[in-house]
Amino acid sequence: MTDSPIEFYFDFNSPYGYVGAHLIDNIAERYDRKTDWYPISLGVAFKITGMKPMSDIPLKGEYFEIDSARVCRYYGVDYLKPDVAPFSATAASRAFYWIKDKDPGQAKGFAMAIYAAALAKNEDVSAPSSVVKIAAGVGIDQKELLDALQEPDIKQRLVDETDGAIKKGVFGSPFVIADGEPFFGVDRFEILDEWLVTEGF
Amino acid sequence: MTDSPIEFYFDFNSPYGYVGAHLIDNIAERYDRKTDWYPISLGVAFKITGMKPMSDIPLKGEYFEIDSARVCRYYGVDYLKPDVAPFSATAASRAFYWIKDKDPGQAKGFAMAIYAAALAKNEDVSAPSSVVKIAAGVGIDQKELLDALQEPDIKQRLVDETDGAIKKGVFGSPFVIADGEPFFGVDRFEILDEWLVTEGF
Repeated sequence: MTDSPIEFYFDFNSPYGYVGAHLIDNIAERYDRKTDWYPISLGVAFKITGMKPMSDIPLKGEYFEIDSARVCRYYGVDYLKPDVAPFSATAASRAFYWIKDKDPGQAKGFAMAIYAAALAKNEDVSAPSSVVKIAAGVGIDQKELLDALQEPDIKQRLVDETDGAIKKGVFGSPFVIADGEPFFGVDRFEILDEWLVTEGF
Repeated sequence: MTDSPIEFYFDFNSPYGYVGAHLIDNIAERYDRKTDWYPISLGVAFKITGMKPMSDIPLKGEYFEIDSARVCRYYGVDYLKPDVAPFSATAASRAFYWIKDKDPGQAKGFAMAIYAAALAKNEDVSAPSSVVKIAAGVGIDQKELLDALQEPDIKQRLVDETDGAIKKGVFGSPFVIADGEPFFGVDRFEILDEWLVTEGF
């Protein structure tokens, strides 16, 4: 077992990613491990896998509605299906990396606030103006972030992070990589836990 | 909570279905419930959802190899990736329904024997001649089953059962329906268990 952080990939549209975000740091802490969070644009991965958002797939879409709400109830996570789904998570994901470069812990707090707004309160989080307001709630300077969101670097960053994730095999949300071992889905966190206990079984 | 059986849908190609087959009757018994098993032709559902076998999907295919073996290890189920995958499970699935009509318990034993041959011993189970040999191991008359496998009724039966499953929303393996509530994936069995405890949470 190494000291390298457990990588946690997620899309802000994903209720399962939301549940995963509630759980991953607790799991890691039990094994004295750090986590490194990466919001990604799942739509880019979908182009490679030929997948679509689950809500757009016949049969699977109807199931997803039942299951996502049920998984949230099971884990005690407040959830309210957003009126617009999928929504654009581009501004929120870009903002995340800008905040993370200053303070990774604050970025996690920001991610939870975005998730709660989007998936528990049916708030629109697609506009940069909404994103910076939510960021202000976790202590970020609104004006500074709003300016940063216009920079080409921050736009490219999300592209690069998403490409990097895909190169590592990430195709869904949540997706965890621990010591090179991939785990897709919040339903694999129990197996991830066992993996960390046994240092690979 | 009703007395209606818990419906268990699976494809003989599915390692997750194999693990599910090991678990489902134990879960049901804890709540004094019966189970009703239905092998289906998942390829027919894939045509509706636009899905493909996981092994054929970029990124997901490589993950599936790691994950399916790992899930089997986690649940203590012997697994050996078959050389030919996916294989034709048509004869085995047809035989299942023929046996089930005589003795549902014997059909479950047959299903476990097919699964073990295909997914733990790398045996070819696609030919009717292989299927009837495996059936003989659980007390079925080989000749009688081989003749039955030629009958139009038994061929239509698998088509009808698969269509019926899809009408109920089944799109993957394993898939459980308990009191109308759908559960996709062996990873949802824990939530199924909670659902049965609480009579729907």
